[in-house]
Amino acid sequence: MDYQHLLADRTTLMQANAIREILKVVSNPDIISLAGGIPSPDSFPMDIIQELTRIVLDKYESRGFQYDLTEGFLPLREQVSILLESRGIKTPPDAVNITSGSQGVLDAIAKLTISKGDKIALEAPTYLGALSAFNPYEPCYIPMEMDDEGLIPESLEHTLKNHKIKFIYLVPTFQNPTGRSLTLERRIRIAEIIQQYNVLLVEDDPYSALRYEGDPVPPIKTLAPDHVIYISTLSKVFAPGLRIGFYAAPKFLREWLVLVKQGVDLHTSTFNQALAAEYLEGGHLLNHLPRIIDIYKPRQKAMVDALTRMLPPEFSCAPSQGGMFLWVAGPKGFSALSLYDKAIENGVAFVPGQFFYTNPEEGLETMRLNYTMADEATIELGIEKLTASIRALQK
Amino acid sequence: MDYQHLLADRTTLMQANAIREILKVVSNPDIISLAGGIPSPDSFPMDIIQELTRIVLDKYESRGFQYDLTEGFLPLREQVSILLESRGIKTPPDAVNITSGSQGVLDAIAKLTISKGDKIALEAPTYLGALSAFNPYEPCYIPMEMDDEGLIPESLEHTLKNHKIKFIYLVPTFQNPTGRSLTLERRIRIAEIIQQYNVLLVEDDPYSALRYEGDPVPPIKTLAPDHVIYISTLSKVFAPGLRIGFYAAPKFLREWLVLVKQGVDLHTSTFNQALAAEYLEGGHLLNHLPRIIDIYKPRQKAMVDALTRMLPPEFSCAPSQGGMFLWVAGPKGFSALSLYDKAIENGVAFVPGQFFYTNPEEGLETMRLNYTMADEATIELGIEKLTASIRALQK
Repeated sequence: MDYQHLLADRTTLMQANAIREILKVVSNPDIISLAGGIPSPDSFPMDIIQELTRIVLDKYESRGFQYDLTEGFLPLREQVSILLESRGIKTPPDAVNITSGSQGVLDAIAKLTISKGDKIALEAPTYLGALSAFNPYEPCYIPMEMDDEGLIPESLEHTLKNHKIKFIYLVPTFQNPTGRSLTLERRIRIAEIIQQYNVLLVEDDPYSALRYEGDPVPPIKTLAPDHVIYISTLSKVFAPGLRIGFYAAPKFLREWLVLVKQGVDLHTSTFNQALAAEYLEGGHLLNHLPRIIDIYKPRQKAMVDALTRMLPPEFSCAPSQGGMFLWVAGPKGFSALSLYDKAIENGVAFVPGQFFYTNPEEGLETMRLNYTMADEATIELGIEKLTASIRALQK
Repeated sequence: MDYQHLLADRTTLMQANAIREILKVVSNPDIISLAGGIPSPDSFPMDIIQELTRIVLDKYESRGFQYDLTEGFLPLREQVSILLESRGIKTPPDAVNITSGSQGVLDAIAKLTISKGDKIALEAPTYLGALSAFNPYEPCYIPMEMDDEGLIPESLEHTLKNHKIKFIYLVPTFQNPTGRSLTLERRIRIAEIIQQYNVLLVEDDPYSALRYEGDPVPPIKTLAPDHVIYISTLSKVFAPGLRIGFYAAPKFLREWLVLVKQGVDLHTSTFNQALAAEYLEGGHLLNHLPRIIDIYKPRQKAMVDALTRMLPPEFSCAPSQGGMFLWVAGPKGFSALSLYDKAIENGVAFVPGQFFYTNPEEGLETMRLNYTMADEATIELGIEKLTASIRALQK
């Protein structure tokens, strides 16, 4: 049977994630991988999970295994409401919704809002998972400029003056791929701009709890609540395999997003939501988060130190106070894709930054380095191999 | 802020599930609900779940909580491969894919194949969850005729002669909402027809394990493997709250469906997949399934007996050998929607059958009765109240 003719028009915009292909190469254990984008398994609270399941079984019995509301399991929504309040976002439990990872709400937002050709404004570079959620709905991307302080507000304003935008998508804190964060001043300015232009912002915040230095900065949601859908996840502070994401959105959008989700998966795993509720209610997040930071902070420092020491002077690393990534840029004309082959030969992998841009001509000289999956000594050795590869390429 | 203008064109076809609204009414504990569509919590193997979590934690450790392949957790795919073989479907583990409930693959199939206006042929009546998965992609439905032996092959042939169809969607065994099954003769004929017309069939099979009488009938997938995507779930034989569905599809479609799923939720909960793998690998499904049947079989019998005894002679109940539902049809001109109000007054709820038809003028005289959520005595009382309501309405 020929299946090709069965494909919907939208499949022309859908393609395998390039990084996924790269990650296949680096499953080779002889290669130091700075290419990944996942939390260290050492960061999972394995010591309490058996106890959490016991409590959940006692407390919720069969209810933890039954179909549940598309909106989310109420005990978890109550706990997430408290978590959101600690981030300055006041949302009652019945206005908190749970999704299957933050990917779930990115898909739902795109499905709800994007007609073919609709414009989405986003940081360049941006998070690839968001693109793979948005692409099937055939949007047109308007990339905006960033610097070391995140999105440049003038670029946003310029975009909104010149384009009719369905929504803006940002990862304002410890962005994937750059590790950069928007300053408070810029958040305030961006909140003003989106209110002035009456445009919706999707604020994706998976990493803000992973802060290794500096003071917390409030989500943009706190500065323009009616204009922002705030998205976060427990993937980086509990366990990604449980697929628990959550969001706070204006009522009109929330009700629609629930309807969209109903058609996609009915609801997120009740048992996992109950485990997450217990993780939060039992105070385990508060206890465990410092342990996660104790793992990642020295790894980030080891990478920053090694880069500072070994990177050729024409290369720079963006400053970052948290998250999982560092972003290195070479001089104009440098090809990170050519470096990639050399680096693999030398036993180290990274992700060429160009994959994070919607414009294929941008970011050719950039690379994303992950530091959550290797210990300090391995990271130092990895950077040594990487910088040796750079020097070899420059000869 | 005005949000209305943010909605994509596709939202015109999306609306709240009518049954969901009905189910809200019947959360009243004074009303006997035959309206539900969910498994009894007594059917969940609560006695072994703690033990399953312990084994999973020992066996897979942090791997059970990490990100995993979009295709599915390999140990579960191995077990589902064995389960599929027991149903006559030979699919190696790497050709089995896991989704977040069968809803997840219904969404993915629709997203992959439906361009606006594309035609989908389906049984009238059909499963509502499938419609809520398909609707956002703006298909056009071609309903086909059924009788007590399921879809009428001539109706399928007529449809394929007169329409260009993207795919056919069927629930051939113990269908929701009718409880009816396709006979073996018809399966063979339908397999011939789809091969002759070279058309794709989506065979949704959530209920076939819940057989209370008669011999198993092979899935249509076994008769036309290249032309069928076979979908099933553990929701009715393990626990729906874990959201584990699975499917077997031709390679070309499978690879695309994985790509689609990646954008929607990255992957299904690793922990839940590991629990499901252990449930199957440990032989628990085989042990537990007879216990589930021991709960449901007498409930079905109680409902059939009560209907046989109490239904007015101009009403009929479709024969059914398993699943969760019975389907009652009144005489032409009878309004099940009018009966609904009367029945609620009398303390019993059901779902008017018209909601399961894509043509709003069909099925006005029909009703779906669920027997999994009440015990035999309650079911008998429920049917007494229902038939009293019918008589009251006929006065």
